[in-house]
Amino acid sequence: MIQSLLAGCRWGAAGEGEAYAPANIALCKYWGKRDAVLNLPVTDSLSVSLGRLGTHCRIALSGRDDLYFLNGCEQAAGSAFASRLRVFLDHFRGSGRYRYRVDTTNTVATGAGFASSASGFAALVLALDALHGWDCDKSTLSSLARIGSGSACRSLWHGFVRWRAGVAADGSDCHACPLGREWSSLRIGLVSVCTDAKPVSSRAAMSRTVATSSLYRSWPQQVENDMTGLVAAIEGQDFDMLGMYAEQNALAMHATMIAAKPPVLYWKPGSIEEMEQVWKARTEGVPVYFTMDAGPNLKLLFEEQNQSKIQQWFPEMQVANPWRF
Amino acid sequence: MIQSLLAGCRWGAAGEGEAYAPANIALCKYWGKRDAVLNLPVTDSLSVSLGRLGTHCRIALSGRDDLYFLNGCEQAAGSAFASRLRVFLDHFRGSGRYRYRVDTTNTVATGAGFASSASGFAALVLALDALHGWDCDKSTLSSLARIGSGSACRSLWHGFVRWRAGVAADGSDCHACPLGREWSSLRIGLVSVCTDAKPVSSRAAMSRTVATSSLYRSWPQQVENDMTGLVAAIEGQDFDMLGMYAEQNALAMHATMIAAKPPVLYWKPGSIEEMEQVWKARTEGVPVYFTMDAGPNLKLLFEEQNQSKIQQWFPEMQVANPWRF
Repeated sequence: MIQSLLAGCRWGAAGEGEAYAPANIALCKYWGKRDAVLNLPVTDSLSVSLGRLGTHCRIALSGRDDLYFLNGCEQAAGSAFASRLRVFLDHFRGSGRYRYRVDTTNTVATGAGFASSASGFAALVLALDALHGWDCDKSTLSSLARIGSGSACRSLWHGFVRWRAGVAADGSDCHACPLGREWSSLRIGLVSVCTDAKPVSSRAAMSRTVATSSLYRSWPQQVENDMTGLVAAIEGQDFDMLGMYAEQNALAMHATMIAAKPPVLYWKPGSIEEMEQVWKARTEGVPVYFTMDAGPNLKLLFEEQNQSKIQQWFPEMQVANPWRF
Repeated sequence: MIQSLLAGCRWGAAGEGEAYAPANIALCKYWGKRDAVLNLPVTDSLSVSLGRLGTHCRIALSGRDDLYFLNGCEQAAGSAFASRLRVFLDHFRGSGRYRYRVDTTNTVATGAGFASSASGFAALVLALDALHGWDCDKSTLSSLARIGSGSACRSLWHGFVRWRAGVAADGSDCHACPLGREWSSLRIGLVSVCTDAKPVSSRAAMSRTVATSSLYRSWPQQVENDMTGLVAAIEGQDFDMLGMYAEQNALAMHATMIAAKPPVLYWKPGSIEEMEQVWKARTEGVPVYFTMDAGPNLKLLFEEQNQSKIQQWFPEMQVANPWRF
């Protein structure tokens, strides 16, 4: 698969490759794979990128073994970080049997519950493209990033990005593309509830849900409806519509997990408290909505003109501006 | 409907009628109506009654107006309690245009989140039968109680009770019946998280879920599977199987609500804490499961021989013995 994506590309290896990719937050979630090896999803999904919150990656050839640095600290070869990168890089060593030195620096807090794997794999693929001089189009790089981490395929662009599920068995029509709309006042607030390691990985939760949750059967219909609503909200710049669809989509995703066997409940007591805060703020006239990924933390959606009001409700939140990068 | 159920019955009114009915906890939930006036459910459900936790009801004719007493205190005619009883009693005043005095005493804490409406309407119907001398069979009384509160139809019996959804439009085949199995070591522990009035009534939550939750479409399939599993667990006295199915059924019911528009989230931070306690106890080898109704409180399932261990984990719980009445 990777070979066919890179067929006809140059393959040099001079100096180093360097790139940045933003993290992204899904407004309509990627939840469920039709192919677990190629990371092909059951449904489309839609995200907004987080501007300057993301990952810088530098990659160069290494003399002997792979070397991995995360935020300046070398990572042991047996670490989860190194293992996941090594498996991915095995696809790219080419006839030169290259060894790599990878320097990854996250501007989004690592392990604070705001997944850096999407921006990490997107930045890595962009850096590989620069290092080897493939000069691939971004759709191809999106497909390559997808193989590292599904949602990484959306981190190739800023702004709103749609990942199309496609139908091809080899994933050749399964990559993201920018929606081509801006919404300059939209902001994302990161609210951290718990930064402990997750008891169940997103990957395991997703596959357990697909395999065992009877409610998951209704998920594709939910997504179809929500995608239509979200795209219409973005085109009409209708903030309440955007927030309502995004919040409901996230809750429905969590609902499919809660109904898995055994259940996957990522919510902590603090997650409920923060959800209740959002609902309370809305009843008091503050336009704020939330979304949540496969974890206990909230991501708030609001508009720039309400930021100071919302910071009074959520003084600890970190604000991302998708349109400043 | 009520007239046809009581056709051919005697209809006296001498002295007073008195009866007791137990509360019940659903192991497979009643969630969704196919007829909101007659309280006809979409699916079957299965409960266990709570023995001595329930409602005593005394009913007599009253001179002028209806009089309602709850736990010895007279309830104002305009109160929610009086209004709900009055509407129900309007079906039974007969040609005598009877006025009633109703004394209701709950042995399960009123308003502590452990619904007393099921035992309340079941006891009321039994007391009416005694007062008027209808001498109805219990299936008929179960149908009458169902019209007051759906799950009340299951409170006509002790032990395990199955409510069959039926197919008739007039509900004539829609009543409960005892499963005919005992499980003398089974106990129920009531764990109260929050006793505030619910922000959304069960009735409203149910109808909103049916109308707006895309995940609800999968609920009938969930119930079909769980009913089979629960009946098999009871027949085989397989406690882990019983607990697993009951817990998963309750979580799936809550999942359908969480996916409603707008969402219905009955869980409080304390609900998550108590669920986590149950799961932690199980990982430490203590066989305990939970179920939850449309509210924030937990009901634990365990066996008598583990009661003291479980009381160490949940020192505040109130224990019900379904087999002592």
